[in-house]
Amino acid sequence: MTAAKSAAFVAVGSELVRTDRLDTNSLLTARLLGRCGFALVEKRCVEDDVGTIAAAVSELLARTELVVVSGGLGPTADDVTREAVSRALGLALVRRSDLEEELAARYRGRGRPVPPIAFRMAEVLEGAEVLRNPLGTAPGQLLQVKGRTLVLLPGVPLELEQILTSHLLPRWVAVGGVVTRTLRLAGVYESQVEQRVSPLYERFGRERVTILAARGQVSLVLTAAGPRAPEDLATMEKAFSAAAGSDLFGRDEDTLPGAVLELLGRRGWRLATAESCTGGLVGFQLTAVSGASNQYVGGVVAYSNRLKERMLGVPAEVLAAHGAVSGDAAEAMAQGACALGAECGLAVTGIAGPTGGSTEKPVGTVHIAVSTPHGGRHSQHHFSGNREMVREFSANFALDLLRRALLEDG
Amino acid sequence: MTAAKSAAFVAVGSELVRTDRLDTNSLLTARLLGRCGFALVEKRCVEDDVGTIAAAVSELLARTELVVVSGGLGPTADDVTREAVSRALGLALVRRSDLEEELAARYRGRGRPVPPIAFRMAEVLEGAEVLRNPLGTAPGQLLQVKGRTLVLLPGVPLELEQILTSHLLPRWVAVGGVVTRTLRLAGVYESQVEQRVSPLYERFGRERVTILAARGQVSLVLTAAGPRAPEDLATMEKAFSAAAGSDLFGRDEDTLPGAVLELLGRRGWRLATAESCTGGLVGFQLTAVSGASNQYVGGVVAYSNRLKERMLGVPAEVLAAHGAVSGDAAEAMAQGACALGAECGLAVTGIAGPTGGSTEKPVGTVHIAVSTPHGGRHSQHHFSGNREMVREFSANFALDLLRRALLEDG
Repeated sequence: MTAAKSAAFVAVGSELVRTDRLDTNSLLTARLLGRCGFALVEKRCVEDDVGTIAAAVSELLARTELVVVSGGLGPTADDVTREAVSRALGLALVRRSDLEEELAARYRGRGRPVPPIAFRMAEVLEGAEVLRNPLGTAPGQLLQVKGRTLVLLPGVPLELEQILTSHLLPRWVAVGGVVTRTLRLAGVYESQVEQRVSPLYERFGRERVTILAARGQVSLVLTAAGPRAPEDLATMEKAFSAAAGSDLFGRDEDTLPGAVLELLGRRGWRLATAESCTGGLVGFQLTAVSGASNQYVGGVVAYSNRLKERMLGVPAEVLAAHGAVSGDAAEAMAQGACALGAECGLAVTGIAGPTGGSTEKPVGTVHIAVSTPHGGRHSQHHFSGNREMVREFSANFALDLLRRALLEDG
Repeated sequence: MTAAKSAAFVAVGSELVRTDRLDTNSLLTARLLGRCGFALVEKRCVEDDVGTIAAAVSELLARTELVVVSGGLGPTADDVTREAVSRALGLALVRRSDLEEELAARYRGRGRPVPPIAFRMAEVLEGAEVLRNPLGTAPGQLLQVKGRTLVLLPGVPLELEQILTSHLLPRWVAVGGVVTRTLRLAGVYESQVEQRVSPLYERFGRERVTILAARGQVSLVLTAAGPRAPEDLATMEKAFSAAAGSDLFGRDEDTLPGAVLELLGRRGWRLATAESCTGGLVGFQLTAVSGASNQYVGGVVAYSNRLKERMLGVPAEVLAAHGAVSGDAAEAMAQGACALGAECGLAVTGIAGPTGGSTEKPVGTVHIAVSTPHGGRHSQHHFSGNREMVREFSANFALDLLRRALLEDG
């Protein structure tokens, strides 16, 4: 197995060295670089200061093969990454007319004039390759410095990811290295997954498996390296998929809403949602998938009891007898969603907290119901965590209950 | 005005430069150091490697007044912080018999013999002050180096906090701290804000202002330090608030949905939403605020035209004549939302992409409409970015249009 090449990451932004913000671009970058055989040995967050950024670039280029800097490429006065690299490496900044024109066109498209300050984004380091940024205004830059590579990328995560995956990974990945496969599971907790896959560690090596948990979703990242990497990875994937069983909904870039919409499409069924405590999160997640409108008609955010009755036909007696957070209410909501004009209904009602809990129904109590042409399903949960976590757990477990119903009722 | 004294933070641990773990000790440290007048200018995560840790210590002591290193002080072979500092500063490591005895006593208390390797924790850098660690086995160390201060602390957050607060803060706090104020703006772009506040840089100092942008929201972080910090900050806040004008919706922990709900509460009005391209995001954001149900009744995710007609009473003629993405449709949706049982309605309809655009209505075209008892408002936008960005811009600009209507119609 080939040793990884060393890389370093620098996140630029005074907000990242204060008390309330963490850089997450480094995680994304570590993951993407890992695919082409680079391992981070150091990462930094530095304030928006020419001297500090320049020192980081000089020091890291002296000891790693690749340095990725994110942020500080925007138009404002505190965006000084270009100037810092210019100082660190003694390279001039050249304003490129083609980039000026692109900027002007982009602003015209939004019906706004270019603020003069924005033209700073057209400045390129002498000898640098420009990395186009289709999602934003500030392009990235790539420089070869004494056999080492320096890459400047925007700090917006999507733009950084886009440039890395479309421009850089393809040219680096050929070098060989590590291949990965991510198995995506839902409706299960991390500890349950850990329990089930741990017997496989002995066979494949624990260091080749990473478990990532995200409130009702669990990902298993499998890696392999060396000349037999693809075959090794396929063997691993087979073994771990078997251990994951029906919790497995997809791999790599697959998403849970995407898996649900795909199953709906296969059955030719449409879906409507009825959400209380999630407040629209399930609909938002479904419609994050482009083309969702083929299966998803929409739904009701029935935050008040009045809307539950009026828009979803939940009987007042059910609300009176069992409360809005009950299996009966969830089932009535799911049926009410179907009545909006869909074969399937998905309903969530619960107590997200921090207030509203009781001894009988503590914060975190959530009822989920599914209605399909072949029947219904209901599940009750007691999620732990704060309001945000309870709502994310609820949405993921709701989509997953529908997924299981579609698999079994199909 | 006294500037803050510069500090740097180093988190030691190979797990912190991989793909799934973030260092959070730096946030805790930044907060605690802020109380005694230190501001972090840089932070690093480095792998468990003598050379990398040594380089970090040397480089940072050369440019900051205080360097705090956390982690790598334990007993195992990969705990190499002591050795790294020894190498960086050319100081011997001395095994102290008083610390050996404490370790032995601590292990006896747990009924276990001291593993020989654990005595590494009794090694102290020549000339260092030992910082007792009542919560763990590895003590901290403090060194004065050419007028600068180096502190080594355990990586366990509770132990780090305990040593900082009990040993270090009391001796540093006398100097006076840094205060910050965040101004929150919405319905505006970063470059517009920059243009408007840049005349204030000369007066207050550019390094005291950070601009953060997040798809329709912009934050201005203002800082002041020294004995007159509170008065300085108040003066700054006044000047920047005036420049922000009606775009300013709050400060510090205020959120845009929170500001909207608060204005609704003041008027005694309820709100219902009608969302198309945002798919539930506006409802989700509003219900992230605990107690939202006092003002927010819910709404309809009218993703299909059929639901727009049926649930919101949008006339079929409007959809036929102008399309679902039009000012007329948005206004009808906002009125339809009110009819669900609320004084105010908020509607969003648009083309989030990547498909569905046309020459006349390109991807990013979004119509927002507000209806209040005092009238209505409509705005049309051309947002740039991918599907996710267009939807976030849409939700933020929608909440902001409602905020402005509530301010003006109140």
